[in-house]
Amino acid sequence: MKPGDPIAVLDSGLGGLTVVNALRRVLPAEDLIYFGDTAHLPYGNKSPAAVCRFVRQIVQFLEPMNPKHLVMACNTATALAMPTIAAEFPGLSISGVIEPGARAAVAAAGARRLPAIGVIATEATVRSKAYERAIFQRRNLAQVMLRPTPLLVPMIEEGRTGDDPLVETALRQYLQSMILRKVDVLVLGCTHYPLLKGAIAKVIGPKVRLIDSAEQCAQDVARRLERKGLLRGPVSSQAEPIGSPDDTAAMDESPSATGTLRTFVTDDPERFAMLASRFLEMEIERPTLVKPLMPDVSAPVVLRAAG
Amino acid sequence: MKPGDPIAVLDSGLGGLTVVNALRRVLPAEDLIYFGDTAHLPYGNKSPAAVCRFVRQIVQFLEPMNPKHLVMACNTATALAMPTIAAEFPGLSISGVIEPGARAAVAAAGARRLPAIGVIATEATVRSKAYERAIFQRRNLAQVMLRPTPLLVPMIEEGRTGDDPLVETALRQYLQSMILRKVDVLVLGCTHYPLLKGAIAKVIGPKVRLIDSAEQCAQDVARRLERKGLLRGPVSSQAEPIGSPDDTAAMDESPSATGTLRTFVTDDPERFAMLASRFLEMEIERPTLVKPLMPDVSAPVVLRAAG
Repeated sequence: MKPGDPIAVLDSGLGGLTVVNALRRVLPAEDLIYFGDTAHLPYGNKSPAAVCRFVRQIVQFLEPMNPKHLVMACNTATALAMPTIAAEFPGLSISGVIEPGARAAVAAAGARRLPAIGVIATEATVRSKAYERAIFQRRNLAQVMLRPTPLLVPMIEEGRTGDDPLVETALRQYLQSMILRKVDVLVLGCTHYPLLKGAIAKVIGPKVRLIDSAEQCAQDVARRLERKGLLRGPVSSQAEPIGSPDDTAAMDESPSATGTLRTFVTDDPERFAMLASRFLEMEIERPTLVKPLMPDVSAPVVLRAAG
Repeated sequence: MKPGDPIAVLDSGLGGLTVVNALRRVLPAEDLIYFGDTAHLPYGNKSPAAVCRFVRQIVQFLEPMNPKHLVMACNTATALAMPTIAAEFPGLSISGVIEPGARAAVAAAGARRLPAIGVIATEATVRSKAYERAIFQRRNLAQVMLRPTPLLVPMIEEGRTGDDPLVETALRQYLQSMILRKVDVLVLGCTHYPLLKGAIAKVIGPKVRLIDSAEQCAQDVARRLERKGLLRGPVSSQAEPIGSPDDTAAMDESPSATGTLRTFVTDDPERFAMLASRFLEMEIERPTLVKPLMPDVSAPVVLRAAG
């Protein structure tokens, strides 16, 4: 492992690009490899077994590229697959988005006696209880409220923004119980959600600290590489302040990025490239299409009933 | 092929259950096999290549069960994969949802000189232009308007119904241009949408004939089997009238169904069984989980960059 090796970032599709965005701002000199599993997206309504299978295939594909670090830039993948995959690939340095988000949430809760921490996430992340575990590990006394918000990802991928009345109605519905319970901190527990940060801040109110798990994840990666002496260049101080209610702050500041970005997808490179520009605020080259090795039609059945 | 053989129904996940519902009403004596590809859902934002690959695997799995007919109960699968798969499996009798829907839409347009036919569907179905082709094949002079409505499937799978303000707002947005253009007929070009038929009828207005592609597909299957002398029992006359604005009409009438229903899924049988009851208005047994044959972790890379 050398400082010149790339950082690999994997996600179910597009959301992980908010982590790429943050990485390019915090670590502008690093070469990045991004893998979006667009043939299997979304992960948020799949089972742990399926998500582990998808992620395992991706890591097998990325491993020969010698990444100095691998980031699971997807809350669902982190929640459902990280322990399994980390155990299966002991030679790889791997981190995710949940630990950094939980750590920042606990820090933001400060000295309150019984802080109320809200988390919005996919159905699968909520069911996994990964955020509860990560928060309670750091702080015994806290009220933790999770809410699945499954429409936000398709709304963002449809191109809707925070000023769309449909998005506002959905956010009011989803956040109502957290507003009533007066949460102190709200974690955006899906890497798509930073694109709606401004609208979320408006609905939840100015007293609530927002934690962007994508931003926290990038800062965590910088600390890990620094500790290991694997940084390629200096860490930029352009870190976004925690809880900034500004949709575009994370998007506009990557002037000094000189590292490369290579992208791989498992389906529809054109659709990915088109949507990616909204996440990255820059155009990307057409991603490389990666396909599973499939048997031909005359081969025997490849699906088997289990159990 | 014998009248006692089963009818196989495939879909990306749950939507095809509206076709099962209609089949159980129209052909109550038939044994049905349902395959929901829940590991890969939704198909509606995937490419033709990916959807063909998924459907091919399913058909390879179903073929040894000797179905007397195979129904692609998914508009996206029909639009993107049917010609390819039909050519690859010449021994199988296959039909889809688009031809019957287009035929019913043209019939419903009646003698108008230049009828306006609207279709709401997934992103992939709209891009395929399959509905335009099927409609123009039957009628040269028509205005055909397609609108992708990608939030309706996740809204339905989240458990939302037509009286939810978010659903109503989304329908008003999606249908606005069709209302302005005064469509005569509106095709529900996704097998999930019959669950919102009442709300769609309310928003689009009473003058517009609604075509339920799931219902039309079931009647088409009955005609095909009848023609081939492969019916197991009589065709029920409980056919739902075209354009019924009643959400529940299609759900409440399967008193005489005596054929069996076996279900297979590629992910999360529990989630499927839970959601299925909303589509079928009856409980089903836990589906059989079907898994792709995957190489073990030590096997060589199974993803390859293409092209």
